[in-house]
Amino acid sequence: MNGSEARIGSKHSKILGDATGHFLAGSFILILGLWWSTKSILKYICKQQKRSSSLITPKFFSRAEILEGIVISVMALIGIIGLFSRFGKIKTLPPEHIQLAKILHWQHVTMYTVLIMLGVTKVLCFTISSLPMSLIKLMASNAFFVEAFIFYNHPRSNALLDKFLHHQLNLGAFLTGLAAFIEFLLTKNNVVLELLTSSFAMLQGACFLQIGFVLYPTNIEHAWDLNDPNNSMIFSTLFGAYYASIYVIIGVNYALVSWFIKLKLSKPCPSEIQSLKNYEQHEDSEDDM
Amino acid sequence: MNGSEARIGSKHSKILGDATGHFLAGSFILILGLWWSTKSILKYICKQQKRSSSLITPKFFSRAEILEGIVISVMALIGIIGLFSRFGKIKTLPPEHIQLAKILHWQHVTMYTVLIMLGVTKVLCFTISSLPMSLIKLMASNAFFVEAFIFYNHPRSNALLDKFLHHQLNLGAFLTGLAAFIEFLLTKNNVVLELLTSSFAMLQGACFLQIGFVLYPTNIEHAWDLNDPNNSMIFSTLFGAYYASIYVIIGVNYALVSWFIKLKLSKPCPSEIQSLKNYEQHEDSEDDM
Amino acid sequence: MNGSEARIGSKHSKILGDATGHFLAGSFILILGLWWSTKSILKYICKQQKRSSSLITPKFFSRAEILEGIVISVMALIGIIGLFSRFGKIKTLPPEHIQLAKILHWQHVTMYTVLIMLGVTKVLCFTISSLPMSLIKLMASNAFFVEAFIFYNHPRSNALLDKFLHHQLNLGAFLTGLAAFIEFLLTKNNVVLELLTSSFAMLQGACFLQIGFVLYPTNIEHAWDLNDPNNSMIFSTLFGAYYASIYVIIGVNYALVSWFIKLKLSKPCPSEIQSLKNYEQHEDSEDDM
Amino acid sequence: MNGSEARIGSKHSKILGDATGHFLAGSFILILGLWWSTKSILKYICKQQKRSSSLITPKFFSRAEILEGIVISVMALIGIIGLFSRFGKIKTLPPEHIQLAKILHWQHVTMYTVLIMLGVTKVLCFTISSLPMSLIKLMASNAFFVEAFIFYNHPRSNALLDKFLHHQLNLGAFLTGLAAFIEFLLTKNNVVLELLTSSFAMLQGACFLQIGFVLYPTNIEHAWDLNDPNNSMIFSTLFGAYYASIYVIIGVNYALVSWFIKLKLSKPCPSEIQSLKNYEQHEDSEDDM
Repeated sequence: MNGSEARIGSKHSKILGDATGHFLAGSFILILGLWWSTKSILKYICKQQKRSSSLITPKFFSRAEILEGIVISVMALIGIIGLFSRFGKIKTLPPEHIQLAKILHWQHVTMYTVLIMLGVTKVLCFTISSLPMSLIKLMASNAFFVEAFIFYNHPRSNALLDKFLHHQLNLGAFLTGLAAFIEFLLTKNNVVLELLTSSFAMLQGACFLQIGFVLYPTNIEHAWDLNDPNNSMIFSTLFGAYYASIYVIIGVNYALVSWFIKLKLSKPCPSEIQSLKNYEQHEDSEDDM
Repeated sequence: MNGSEARIGSKHSKILGDATGHFLAGSFILILGLWWSTKSILKYICKQQKRSSSLITPKFFSRAEILEGIVISVMALIGIIGLFSRFGKIKTLPPEHIQLAKILHWQHVTMYTVLIMLGVTKVLCFTISSLPMSLIKLMASNAFFVEAFIFYNHPRSNALLDKFLHHQLNLGAFLTGLAAFIEFLLTKNNVVLELLTSSFAMLQGACFLQIGFVLYPTNIEHAWDLNDPNNSMIFSTLFGAYYASIYVIIGVNYALVSWFIKLKLSKPCPSEIQSLKNYEQHEDSEDDM
Repeated sequence: MNGSEARIGSKHSKILGDATGHFLAGSFILILGLWWSTKSILKYICKQQKRSSSLITPKFFSRAEILEGIVISVMALIGIIGLFSRFGKIKTLPPEHIQLAKILHWQHVTMYTVLIMLGVTKVLCFTISSLPMSLIKLMASNAFFVEAFIFYNHPRSNALLDKFLHHQLNLGAFLTGLAAFIEFLLTKNNVVLELLTSSFAMLQGACFLQIGFVLYPTNIEHAWDLNDPNNSMIFSTLFGAYYASIYVIIGVNYALVSWFIKLKLSKPCPSEIQSLKNYEQHEDSEDDM
Repeated sequence: MNGSEARIGSKHSKILGDATGHFLAGSFILILGLWWSTKSILKYICKQQKRSSSLITPKFFSRAEILEGIVISVMALIGIIGLFSRFGKIKTLPPEHIQLAKILHWQHVTMYTVLIMLGVTKVLCFTISSLPMSLIKLMASNAFFVEAFIFYNHPRSNALLDKFLHHQLNLGAFLTGLAAFIEFLLTKNNVVLELLTSSFAMLQGACFLQIGFVLYPTNIEHAWDLNDPNNSMIFSTLFGAYYASIYVIIGVNYALVSWFIKLKLSKPCPSEIQSLKNYEQHEDSEDDM
């Protein structure tokens, strides 16, 4: 087996597993993780400083969650539509690749479906008050666990680097699911745990982008040798480096949000503090059930 | 090794591991999971809406639990009787299959025995008030862990798909046991966690049915090729799809139960609220011990 | 590789790893597990029924714990003395076995040392009131984890059954350590969790005895074929059967203790209830630290 | 493959992975673990005995934490500077080792960077009061998990003992990370859990020192045979023995600190008790957020 075989592997992937797909999915999850971290920091600082304003109210958070649910659902739906729009092209492939391409197609459809379910759950839980809030965290955990499970059984070429990078992605998805599941179990809001979940989501997004750059290079001449064992060690180092960078990003984000709150928001009037407290009690009482 | 060998593998399974056995076990666990989810939803809505009636009282739940325990025990007993009624036929097998058939026999007897123990524990805990309630959850967890352990050491043919489908079943049983164990550890009733356990039980039931359909096909001509690696990827996708469908089923179930409660039940009279509260306190005090 | 090689494997074990050693260790852990379950049940029923007497007082439990610590230490010390009394014989072995025998010797010494540390910790924590009680559970967890780690790196013959039975023992030790660690983490006394730990300890004891019977048979003619894969499936079934039996034993134990308490103990006088409460508060306050 | 190849393996390591590096890292982590255990014991005894003095005040602990953070950062920075000072020498290596040496270089830089982040987080959390305290524990957990991940993907020779000793180090790092993560999840201060984390840190330090002694021996003639399977069993026994010794060290440490406190500190005046309480409440309220 040599590099040329791995290229063949990347050739048949042009249908579904091309660079564009990985870039889109990666960017989306990266931005989602960044938004989650921003949301958690915002909530934490608002609670701690007991500041509020006409902008950042409990209602604002509720609406933001509903909007987030809708965006996740729509993005995943666009993904599914994109997949089906390319479904016809599968028949034009060489016969030995048709079945594999179909499997890939349905695997991606399943992953997007679970994401849609997460989005819909989010919208439902924030509109129907009788539903338990912790359902959202369970669905988030499920979505990433199902993703990790499917990536574990992903059709892959035999190239060493292809396997290694997908294992990293798999690890990223599993860790995101695990952190979301721990959040679900603990029920009490814990800002650091929420940041952990969002950091793993960003890590996973970075892995997606990495796969896009490494396995589907635009410039074939500077492409990585997919079967050099040293490369897998380089990428394991990068994995650690990404994770460290993500913490720096979250730190900078914390500083920015903190500065923004101090700049813009005045001390809340008593009625707003009251509504904030009610909101918290509302959340807690739902957690207790 | 080829497909024909796998058929031989399925031939010797006609004694104990035939399609009927897998269908029965699968249907039972599927229905059990569905009942568990219905019970949890019913309890949750009753608690939340503080509604009660002459039908849905704390006593009703107690009796339902006892009935459930009896049904589990009886079903498992029927399974054991069925196994022993076929035990005589083992001697008529070709000599090289006799030992394997005996091992299979005793493995299934062990699994059913642990299920009977779960049923008996349920009945005992709801009739003898001094026993701790959390024992039921531990026994449920044990029953599924023992099942997972035995499936892990199950005699299997070398066919790729046979192994893969049993690994999925194994995963389903392990996850059910794990979710039940987490329920046991947390002690506080958490509806979403209960739904998680029941969803894994349903997933496990679906895996049982899948094995029945795939490994013991009624129409040999349309049978799956048990050694095609692509098939294992197809079934991993289906595994994710089942899990997503189960959540849709639970969602529909929630809507139905919610609608049923709103339709049938009036606001409870004060005395019933009191008895409901007593019941909860009773449960909590037992958990604290 | 055939059966005769496995016999050679058992021959060199005559120094340290003979049947007697496994029987002694197995019986000790089995009795320890049984005592732990009795102790937990006794405590639970006394707390629940708020009964006490001149016999079963908080002081009785304290003394029982100290006695248990001394017994564990002395038993482990006897084990170490037994090992060193045989240490001289190692030189009489064929040269190729000397190093292996020395390794086995030191591995067993390490395991016994950790057990002594558990015993000493128990005595210290119940005599010096300033030490945290949860230290005992951590040391119990450590003792079994170290045992599991060392068994994982145990010198073994290549016989299939030798490996499989030691893996079961390994699993038993790991599960005991895990249950003890969960007990340590939860800090609150939970009778069912304590029973789980003691059930795993008994399971581990049963595995020790099994190894004694299977790998070092008294009657060579009826010895198990150590390389038959079917045998490993038989023993996995037995593992499940042992575990089920242990629950029956614990159940019978519960009934006996419950009957004994009802028969012997009268309702406690108020002062005794008070001292019982003090004892509990004492325990709780120590847990909180 | 034989011993001489393993020597070659250790030859190319002279650039970065030499004995000095392992001794420095090992000693640092060993001392860090010892300091952590001393700090935990000191806090525990002060809280329990409600003693305080002009020396051991809440302020003292705050300053000690900040100092610890600075020391960790500076030590890791020295490590990075040391690595870059040797970076130039890589070009003088034989061409086949240059890439491997570069990978090793960057892997170590990543590990030190994560340690710096832990130190900086510690300083920030104890100077900026609005930051959540649990962030420190998460960063400690992260630092060790990243270390374990990178060690898992470390370039290694094929020598059996090289692999085994690095797996032990890996296990030590993973366990330290896991214990720190459990500390993070439980939020409440638990002295025994803190001692567990510090014991694993010391274990990891011992593994570092062991690698320094075994893989880079000063006296080649008495060097270990890196490919003898028996040696791996010897080191697994030593691993258990180290762990047992560490508990003895912690026990002695406890006795010494306890004796020191009794000797030096008088009963605190009421105002100091008050400030101690305020400090605890401050910590608790931060945990709740």
